[in-house]
Amino acid sequence: MKVLVTGFEPFGGEEINPSWEAVKALPDELNGATLLKVRLPVSFKRVREILPRLIAREKPDIVLLTGQAGGRPNVTVERVAINVMDSTMPDNDGFKPEDEPVFEGAPDAYFATIPIKDVVKALRKARIPAGVSNTVGTYVCNTAMFTALHTIAVSGMETKAGFIHVPFSHAQALEKPRPSMAQETINEAIRKALESLLE
Amino acid sequence: MKVLVTGFEPFGGEEINPSWEAVKALPDELNGATLLKVRLPVSFKRVREILPRLIAREKPDIVLLTGQAGGRPNVTVERVAINVMDSTMPDNDGFKPEDEPVFEGAPDAYFATIPIKDVVKALRKARIPAGVSNTVGTYVCNTAMFTALHTIAVSGMETKAGFIHVPFSHAQALEKPRPSMAQETINEAIRKALESLLE
Amino acid sequence: MKVLVTGFEPFGGEEINPSWEAVKALPDELNGATLLKVRLPVSFKRVREILPRLIAREKPDIVLLTGQAGGRPNVTVERVAINVMDSTMPDNDGFKPEDEPVFEGAPDAYFATIPIKDVVKALRKARIPAGVSNTVGTYVCNTAMFTALHTIAVSGMETKAGFIHVPFSHAQALEKPRPSMAQETINEAIRKALESLLE
Amino acid sequence: MKVLVTGFEPFGGEEINPSWEAVKALPDELNGATLLKVRLPVSFKRVREILPRLIAREKPDIVLLTGQAGGRPNVTVERVAINVMDSTMPDNDGFKPEDEPVFEGAPDAYFATIPIKDVVKALRKARIPAGVSNTVGTYVCNTAMFTALHTIAVSGMETKAGFIHVPFSHAQALEKPRPSMAQETINEAIRKALESLLE
Repeated sequence: MKVLVTGFEPFGGEEINPSWEAVKALPDELNGATLLKVRLPVSFKRVREILPRLIAREKPDIVLLTGQAGGRPNVTVERVAINVMDSTMPDNDGFKPEDEPVFEGAPDAYFATIPIKDVVKALRKARIPAGVSNTVGTYVCNTAMFTALHTIAVSGMETKAGFIHVPFSHAQALEKPRPSMAQETINEAIRKALESLLE
Repeated sequence: MKVLVTGFEPFGGEEINPSWEAVKALPDELNGATLLKVRLPVSFKRVREILPRLIAREKPDIVLLTGQAGGRPNVTVERVAINVMDSTMPDNDGFKPEDEPVFEGAPDAYFATIPIKDVVKALRKARIPAGVSNTVGTYVCNTAMFTALHTIAVSGMETKAGFIHVPFSHAQALEKPRPSMAQETINEAIRKALESLLE
Repeated sequence: MKVLVTGFEPFGGEEINPSWEAVKALPDELNGATLLKVRLPVSFKRVREILPRLIAREKPDIVLLTGQAGGRPNVTVERVAINVMDSTMPDNDGFKPEDEPVFEGAPDAYFATIPIKDVVKALRKARIPAGVSNTVGTYVCNTAMFTALHTIAVSGMETKAGFIHVPFSHAQALEKPRPSMAQETINEAIRKALESLLE
Repeated sequence: MKVLVTGFEPFGGEEINPSWEAVKALPDELNGATLLKVRLPVSFKRVREILPRLIAREKPDIVLLTGQAGGRPNVTVERVAINVMDSTMPDNDGFKPEDEPVFEGAPDAYFATIPIKDVVKALRKARIPAGVSNTVGTYVCNTAMFTALHTIAVSGMETKAGFIHVPFSHAQALEKPRPSMAQETINEAIRKALESLLE
């Protein structure tokens, strides 16, 4: 088994991105599976180039993408990615698309192909607050999730793919009254999610 | 040095109270000070009896009260207690006071006598999200804080007293999208707060 | 021009549904268009029967569905409906589907075919707080929106369809600290949205 | 009967302050009482000069102060003002006090002397979402409320005084997903509050 697991670089003025911190902390092997850990740029353009290449070359059995959802209080497993890029906040390349498709002619949306409710159950069993989210937004996180699911769908691969959003880590919210989570717990969440997918 | 440190029993349908879990986990001695750990009932009537007796008998140098503020995302150090008991949610005795004074003839309010900003700084330095709160509410937490400060004020003691509110622990928010914090972090918060008070 | 405009009956213990109150208050003709006003049941099963029949029979040029999104602070124009029914809260028939498709074999999602950003602009121009929402949830609102868009898509009609969520009205939030909006403003929002669609 | 009723000038980058808009819209006489309408500066220093002079000169029977609490979803009647000025956001004079008393040697706090629960009931009866707030903050609003109550207390006057916070008006929240209220409803709230105080 081979798993491609990604986190994002920091964005929006933050110095870290807890999703990449969690992915970086994973071992290279987990329950017999090889983990390929990749840090993605917060770039609409580049995630659409990098992910299809990676998936084609590595042919992973599972793609687990992770990102930061600042303001959410719990770990959320995303249900659906939509074919739109729409943001008033520029990405790290300075790009602010308005209502552009991720891929011209692609379907309006793809559901995650990982068992989202099972992942939520596994997280809660590990005492980590978690739930399903019905929107991954229209920023780069959505573009990454849509790109992975579309790439897999059009190539006819069996690969399962999904996206997990994590809250701010405590270090990002020391002085602001915003929900946040210990980085250790975020790390544990991503690891437990992977373990449940490998079962 | 002697420190009276209290947490509350569970209330509002919860099975645990993270404030008492944190106090229970403290050692009996910390930085040379003796810790007297007490679990308070969520009872307007009984905290007004228990705290004055405890303070008169034990003559602590510091009184640190702690409680659960479900819904708050960070650890909050309370600035002020007010002379009112007002709640539409009954306490654990089934009592729902409306706009009654904690103590007839007492001042309208007391400021915490611990250095609240220093405690906040110590918590943030320990990488724990924290801030000052300007209201401890009008439920039993406020009654406990008001009772301690009033008891100390009228007896002419030098004892410093204050109140720290902690968020829900993760175990209380597994299935609800509410802010929560790892119990380990809550435990660390109360310990770090005490250490900063003992410096 | 003919417009089918719907609101929902009350649900979740509420006595009114501000979406139907707003639709009920509309005139029968607006800017030369005939308005067909319908109150929908909060029923996964029945909206999937009623809406296709209504659309086939009436052949409206525009379908504007509206519903209540308690807790949201502003009027939201929905971007996308997804092919899932998932709820832990029963509908008004007592039905609680888990991860069932709205229609077997239908696409994963449909984008609204009304110009959502133009409606948002028209609402803001009328001094009503508004924005785009990227999730209409997985309850009956989503089922209604999905059903309308799917019915139109498979029948090859030119009808434009979309969904607008309105906040609680003040009458629903008198004693709870939840965002709400004057019913008059909600009424005005639905009317202004229709006017912008009829331009 | 004479009533001093105040609102604040805009602050924090806003172009209007809905509290002053509401006060400005009041008649000069209401239910037989003369209304003295004053716009206060958002200045820690100047409200402490202006309010004592006004109260001494006008000898009002009632002082109703109003201000904007951006982010709150309902109209809140404040219970208590505290003897502290503490802000990281500068006032309109550029002043950012840290933990300074409003008046040296004054009590820690004063309770509002208007019947806060009666005002809340009157607002709800007028279909306006309202509640009691236990903190008026530590910014200029608190300083104004503390100054009025302290001035009245030390002069031995019979004047009743209190503070009402209003949400953002819709015009301030058109493009941001923050709670807000129609200015007409805010105007009505302040008028209904005054009427209930004049009964």
